[in-house]
Amino acid sequence: MTVDNATLSASRGPFPTGSVVISVDAMGGDRGPAAVVAGMAESAEKNPEISFIVHGDEAELRRLIGRRKSLAGRCDIRHAGGVVTMDDKPAQVVRKGQDTSMWSTLEAVRQGDAMVAVSCGNTGALMAMSMLRLRKLPGVNRPAIACLWPSRNPQGFNIMLDVGADIRADAHDLLQYALMGTSYARNGLGLEHPRIGLLNVGTEEHKGRTELKQADELIRQAAAEAHYEYVGFVEGGDLPSTRVDVIVTDGFTGNIALKTGEGTAKLVGELLKDAFANSIMSKFAAVLAMTSLRRLQKRIDPRRVNGGIFLGLNGTVVKSHGSADATGVSAAIKLAFTLAKSGFQDRLAARVAQATGTGETGASS
Amino acid sequence: MTVDNATLSASRGPFPTGSVVISVDAMGGDRGPAAVVAGMAESAEKNPEISFIVHGDEAELRRLIGRRKSLAGRCDIRHAGGVVTMDDKPAQVVRKGQDTSMWSTLEAVRQGDAMVAVSCGNTGALMAMSMLRLRKLPGVNRPAIACLWPSRNPQGFNIMLDVGADIRADAHDLLQYALMGTSYARNGLGLEHPRIGLLNVGTEEHKGRTELKQADELIRQAAAEAHYEYVGFVEGGDLPSTRVDVIVTDGFTGNIALKTGEGTAKLVGELLKDAFANSIMSKFAAVLAMTSLRRLQKRIDPRRVNGGIFLGLNGTVVKSHGSADATGVSAAIKLAFTLAKSGFQDRLAARVAQATGTGETGASS
Repeated sequence: MTVDNATLSASRGPFPTGSVVISVDAMGGDRGPAAVVAGMAESAEKNPEISFIVHGDEAELRRLIGRRKSLAGRCDIRHAGGVVTMDDKPAQVVRKGQDTSMWSTLEAVRQGDAMVAVSCGNTGALMAMSMLRLRKLPGVNRPAIACLWPSRNPQGFNIMLDVGADIRADAHDLLQYALMGTSYARNGLGLEHPRIGLLNVGTEEHKGRTELKQADELIRQAAAEAHYEYVGFVEGGDLPSTRVDVIVTDGFTGNIALKTGEGTAKLVGELLKDAFANSIMSKFAAVLAMTSLRRLQKRIDPRRVNGGIFLGLNGTVVKSHGSADATGVSAAIKLAFTLAKSGFQDRLAARVAQATGTGETGASS
Repeated sequence: MTVDNATLSASRGPFPTGSVVISVDAMGGDRGPAAVVAGMAESAEKNPEISFIVHGDEAELRRLIGRRKSLAGRCDIRHAGGVVTMDDKPAQVVRKGQDTSMWSTLEAVRQGDAMVAVSCGNTGALMAMSMLRLRKLPGVNRPAIACLWPSRNPQGFNIMLDVGADIRADAHDLLQYALMGTSYARNGLGLEHPRIGLLNVGTEEHKGRTELKQADELIRQAAAEAHYEYVGFVEGGDLPSTRVDVIVTDGFTGNIALKTGEGTAKLVGELLKDAFANSIMSKFAAVLAMTSLRRLQKRIDPRRVNGGIFLGLNGTVVKSHGSADATGVSAAIKLAFTLAKSGFQDRLAARVAQATGTGETGASS
């Protein structure tokens, strides 16, 4: 299977030939459109192939974008007067959200004007709206949100899915997460033959919930055909380990694990700061160790692993942290770019179709 | 309610009047009896009130204990030839484990010779055997394992329960965890009016599983009578926070969260080590910052928060990490001592009895 990005993007909009177009929701994040536009500018400086369709208040966006040289001629602004707030209920937004920047952002992907959508907005609303407008891929029962997890592996990250706070997932859902996680690992992290693990409370086969035992069977059986290695059950302590590349779990457990990991890393960071502020000597040491500490901070900075991916829809959506600053937004855009460039969306669709017997084969998708 | 520890312990065994007797399983940990005896010696040096009943291979224990001055006259050795290994299945151990050091350790508590049991052995086997020999407290449906979690609170730790890998808990079980966690926080951490939170994927009331919504109601209703403050739903990121002192969850979710937190802290520690080893300058800085880094390490060292407590049985059992060294064993013994000294077991029983209407009141238990 080949994906001709150039054809797809060059035929649309006012962008340079060959550019990869990202649809960006400029509103709805905790820091407002200024942080989003700053992140776009950061990405644009580093990457000449990116162009943007930007959604939100036109006057404000024109003003913010006008100040950034790197964005000149690379943004198509689409006005949307409404904003989905963090407190809005997903069900309401789906019914009445047609005028919002979030809706408009997804619409650009639905119509094929952009390849990937990026939003810092309300996660529940974004997922509900994505399911409504982009629709689930044929064969997918329950879309998932995948996150990146800092790890000791050479690629620097492991993937965990679902982290979307969905309260249930049966054995077949978990198998689909394994397939979608494989595609993501291959196209997002460049792993040809990713290792998949199923999150449980013990690594012995007799342990855990019934659906986990069933999923263990299904994921084991599908490994050869789908070109992943199944390592069996893994535990919470394995999330950052070199045992595994992709961790499969239900959305409830995954969301708890994600937030627990973030909370722990934050605590350790704060305690480290306290430790260095403790004496004159340690303050002096902190200055000397600055470069090393910055390297560490960069490695575990949640802003740099920013971007949950919605998988299983007709279109790729990157959910950036609500509190993302320019660095965070830029990381989410970089991820969106990598996935768009790799033809991820078509490969993922082919993989799911193959597994559910609804389409042609695509062995390396 | 008053608890006269002195009377209870002085009437038994060969120990000094007034000593608090801890029953210790010397076998079954990854590092063998030498590490356990070293931990006992550390505790005995710091605390003149502790005495031990020690279970395992008599000849070996006599040799190990004979080398430690601080243990002279403070240990009663009880021979047990069998050892429960980490691979033994709980069901088998319960049927055939009568000759093991674990069994003998629990027996000393059951007979009233010791106030608390400590073991580094196989968690599943220890829980199964504890339920068989000590029996559940009247009114308790599902015993729980509680762990300590480093936090920003003044007491330095929060409590989370259940972390025992039990695969289900209904709303009433979760209410009992709230009550037992309250007792533990009061007697183990000295918090008169602990704040209780229920772990969920969001803090809004409409989110999460059905049993969590029911438990939310029950725990809210019981707060006034049981003298805790209920803060509502908390998320994974709140585990080390100052919002809450006790986090209630089912054993599956709690176990995943516990191991995720440990894994994350370990990763950050390793990356920090890498960072300091990176250049001559940073190695020099590490030397200067040594004291501060040691203070940090002490704060988050899993060995110092060592000790899961089994709650809801007729007797207190402290489960130490299988890989605990002398420092870890000593931390578990210190926790066992604090709980025994506070009369925790009787207070917890009174609290559960009160809540289930099977006994007299004990407002501050």
